[in-house]
Amino acid sequence: MSPKNRTLDRLHQQLPLYRAQAEAALDGVLPPEKTPPARLHEAMRYSVLGGGKRLRPCLVYAAGEALGLVREQLDGPACAVELIHAYSLVHDDLPAMDDDDLRRGKPTCHKAYDDATAILVGDALQALAFRCLVTGPAGDADAARRLSMIEHLSVAAGSRGMVGGQAMDLEAEGRRLDLAELENLHIHKTGALIRVSVLLGALCSCDESDQRVQALDHYAKCIGLAFQIQDDVLDVEGNTDELGKTSGADEKRDKATYPALLGLREAKQHAGVLIDDALDTLSGLGPGADTLRGIARYIVERRN
Amino acid sequence: MSPKNRTLDRLHQQLPLYRAQAEAALDGVLPPEKTPPARLHEAMRYSVLGGGKRLRPCLVYAAGEALGLVREQLDGPACAVELIHAYSLVHDDLPAMDDDDLRRGKPTCHKAYDDATAILVGDALQALAFRCLVTGPAGDADAARRLSMIEHLSVAAGSRGMVGGQAMDLEAEGRRLDLAELENLHIHKTGALIRVSVLLGALCSCDESDQRVQALDHYAKCIGLAFQIQDDVLDVEGNTDELGKTSGADEKRDKATYPALLGLREAKQHAGVLIDDALDTLSGLGPGADTLRGIARYIVERRN
Repeated sequence: MSPKNRTLDRLHQQLPLYRAQAEAALDGVLPPEKTPPARLHEAMRYSVLGGGKRLRPCLVYAAGEALGLVREQLDGPACAVELIHAYSLVHDDLPAMDDDDLRRGKPTCHKAYDDATAILVGDALQALAFRCLVTGPAGDADAARRLSMIEHLSVAAGSRGMVGGQAMDLEAEGRRLDLAELENLHIHKTGALIRVSVLLGALCSCDESDQRVQALDHYAKCIGLAFQIQDDVLDVEGNTDELGKTSGADEKRDKATYPALLGLREAKQHAGVLIDDALDTLSGLGPGADTLRGIARYIVERRN
Repeated sequence: MSPKNRTLDRLHQQLPLYRAQAEAALDGVLPPEKTPPARLHEAMRYSVLGGGKRLRPCLVYAAGEALGLVREQLDGPACAVELIHAYSLVHDDLPAMDDDDLRRGKPTCHKAYDDATAILVGDALQALAFRCLVTGPAGDADAARRLSMIEHLSVAAGSRGMVGGQAMDLEAEGRRLDLAELENLHIHKTGALIRVSVLLGALCSCDESDQRVQALDHYAKCIGLAFQIQDDVLDVEGNTDELGKTSGADEKRDKATYPALLGLREAKQHAGVLIDDALDTLSGLGPGADTLRGIARYIVERRN
């Protein structure tokens, strides 16, 4: 079997296991829906459980496994990053933000409940995320390493990370970004949380100064950006197939995208280069890192 | 000087120092307003700095000082609890929640900026709060004790604490609460964060198992509830003076309050009993706890 097929094969074995593990762990940390305030807890569970690719927990599990841990030891950070992601979607979907009615094929939290509840759901999920890094399984991490994980998550989730990226997106409304600005936006808006997912998984096994952690962090930076480029590429190509025309939804909305700024071919090349770079940095890690390799390939080969 | 005058005297000396300390510490942890995304950072500073009683940081400082620390050692938890409080006000003021235009005499965050920015400001402030417990001064606390502080804050701020109380408030709309329900609401909505403020200050000096921590925690539970009762009392008495009639704004809105449920006189008595209980639990703590004693007396003697 070629290395490429081997890693994709490994990926298809692992992803369903990771997703099931994440689902069970999230179910365990979310308060039961009969616990008062029942409506809030029901809405929290509604917003987190039963859907999603779970990319971020999968990255936690795959990074930890690459360094010799098993996934049961990684539930703390896996839940933490997914809860941050879930809260950001709940708040993003609000009328004051993106005003979306549907998420993962069902009504968004504020549609199923109400705006006030959706605000509180997001707020409570964020608090719960930090709790998971204190009380959840985190490999061999001692208290000092857990603190460092909490610090990394607070930065990645905060005004210099994910929330900062969302604010940049607001500030960019009505004007066209150049490539450096677009890249900076994505590094914050989606990249920071993807990157910290890999980092937290790694920190469950070893200290930040470990060379393997540095390698994994570089891997994560590369795949985070490639993920966004591929999203933009799919928006163009998906629309081309579906609508029978070459221009996609992003282009119609005059939104800055990689294909718009670089051209479709060069955008794809750029993603490919990033993935090759990501794979290179894993070269010292042996077959334990095959799932990470698979995720990197999957990111540019996925069709949706 | 009577013990009562001594403690109030001590309080009037200390509060301005505490407030100045909190203001400087918050100024230091908030990102500079020129740092991108500049509008977000400006709005974060707008929402936190330059106003407020700073009751929660004052409780952190006073609790830590009662156990032998100086206030410079307590900035981490002092900032953390105030950032949680500030984020909750920003989200509470949103049109989907209380829809308030003014806060501390100036336009609320969503009025000065916009709803989307206010949502992001609150989200970023919460993340920053947890960071303060990792990186800020926290007395003698080792990594394990810091972790325990983070866990306590995440519970106090989350769906079983402050956010839970806000959700109970939403659920109570349109129906009259009984005394047990009202007390439960306040224990969560305002009590949890007041209580954790004292606890975090104490944990900067000693372990949770220390008897003095238990005493301080009981003190905090009592004053948190007394604070809310006095708020309700002031709403009745303040309106009586201002409007020349005996019924206050809460009563007009048919809102459950302690005076409405217990009568004004019994509500005041109830607050007084709670304060006496709070003072009793401090009896073993010596003059270092005078500021805490002063805060307890101030809570029921304040006129606004």
